[in-house]
Amino acid sequence: MVISIVGIGLIGGSLAITLKENGFADSIIGVDINSDNIDKAYRRRLIDQDMSLNDAINASDIIILSTPVDAMRQLLPGILNQVEHQVVMDVGSTKVNLLNDIKQHPQRGRFVATHPMAGTEYSGPEAALPNLFDHKCTVICDAMDSDEDALEKVRDLYQSIPMKVLELDAKSHDVHTAYVSHISHISSFALALTVLAKEKDENRIFELASGGFGSTVRLAKSSPDMWVPIFKQNRDNVLDVLDEHINQLARFRSLLIKQDYDQFHQLIQESNEIKRIIK
Amino acid sequence: MVISIVGIGLIGGSLAITLKENGFADSIIGVDINSDNIDKAYRRRLIDQDMSLNDAINASDIIILSTPVDAMRQLLPGILNQVEHQVVMDVGSTKVNLLNDIKQHPQRGRFVATHPMAGTEYSGPEAALPNLFDHKCTVICDAMDSDEDALEKVRDLYQSIPMKVLELDAKSHDVHTAYVSHISHISSFALALTVLAKEKDENRIFELASGGFGSTVRLAKSSPDMWVPIFKQNRDNVLDVLDEHINQLARFRSLLIKQDYDQFHQLIQESNEIKRIIK
Repeated sequence: MVISIVGIGLIGGSLAITLKENGFADSIIGVDINSDNIDKAYRRRLIDQDMSLNDAINASDIIILSTPVDAMRQLLPGILNQVEHQVVMDVGSTKVNLLNDIKQHPQRGRFVATHPMAGTEYSGPEAALPNLFDHKCTVICDAMDSDEDALEKVRDLYQSIPMKVLELDAKSHDVHTAYVSHISHISSFALALTVLAKEKDENRIFELASGGFGSTVRLAKSSPDMWVPIFKQNRDNVLDVLDEHINQLARFRSLLIKQDYDQFHQLIQESNEIKRIIK
Repeated sequence: MVISIVGIGLIGGSLAITLKENGFADSIIGVDINSDNIDKAYRRRLIDQDMSLNDAINASDIIILSTPVDAMRQLLPGILNQVEHQVVMDVGSTKVNLLNDIKQHPQRGRFVATHPMAGTEYSGPEAALPNLFDHKCTVICDAMDSDEDALEKVRDLYQSIPMKVLELDAKSHDVHTAYVSHISHISSFALALTVLAKEKDENRIFELASGGFGSTVRLAKSSPDMWVPIFKQNRDNVLDVLDEHINQLARFRSLLIKQDYDQFHQLIQESNEIKRIIK
């Protein structure tokens, strides 16, 4: 199997390592408009060769889109214009707009929309990790709009890693990811800015910050080039969740102002329910 | 050296393991109003014996207060009434009120206010860990108000672990910890409530949530019995930081509403500066 990876960063690069290592891919072609990324991908031995997008499409069995999500929207219709037997899949964090764009495309069936739920706060080929996806979940969206053989190939790909495959409609996917991924990032960005805005003595932060702070602020290291397009594509859902999050913080604020510590205790106990869900 | 640990939970229990293991303590006495905690502490071999607080004070060289911070305020003046040569230290997250309470106490010098900057989201003797404090920072507050020999004993204790010892005045300590510890907890509690409030299908959260969400919401598992007293003792500082945090979230919200993605990108880039501080 020849696999092209369009956008050879953290996610694309990690897939490249895994699929080559487990034998699912015989050869990995790298496609990236950033020649630095191609250089780094060669040096990290993520790819066997690099090509232009057009050549890569013609040479591949599977084309994996792992660019920022706005670039995917620009690229996907043109790629579908060109494919025949090939399968195209994405690994992006938002789905509704992307799938609307190609709803009427005659080659819609060759595309499988997927979202492997794994990542780190780092980006670029240098951030690629060999076991990033092992035993995590991946979502396939609107599976009924993909051709049966394309779907089967993509399922085989994920099961080779192995990842657990779930199916969701695109709309539900975008709502759920706003809750379990996108809001966490905004919360971390805002927390980092909060501390940076007030704390001038940086060594003091560094020295006093323990694991708890590091954990809540870790995602604030994430790349704006990757994340701004996600917030843009999923704006309405993210706004809903952000409003709810600000409301929840305002409840804590109001209880502190009123010194209503019984109710404050009650709210923390309710939030502890997350234990049942996140191990 | 005989050491009493008053409040044998995560922090007290972890100190018990470490100080016994490294030989700093010859014997550990457990004191806890909760007899369940004493039972668990025996079963985990955290303590050599248990005593009433009065007996423990008389039998010890060092008394470590590791209860919730409001209980410390209730206990400390009475303990100081009783000590002669002994050293009393606390390991609490807030200092200003505790130290104000005993400012005029004739035995003030026997007390050393400390805060080892380490923990987990779990609590109780069963959560105690052998290497929780290794190579982390501990803060000693208002060191000039402690007797020289008491200070030296406490420094020796922390260096035996080993921990790095910093000095801060109590007021600065309470401001800094509001930023690097207390706000992270409120942010996590609120994030957990946000997701719990909107997501009814819990399995879906569990399946889709990746490491990023787990990381930002981890602290929401923390005990309200430990944390409400901290927010109560450090209310004014926590309110300042919480206001700032809500303002930062409101900036992101406003930019999303205006669809000003350039400025959104800029804000994320600013928040990325946290990289320089948190490795």
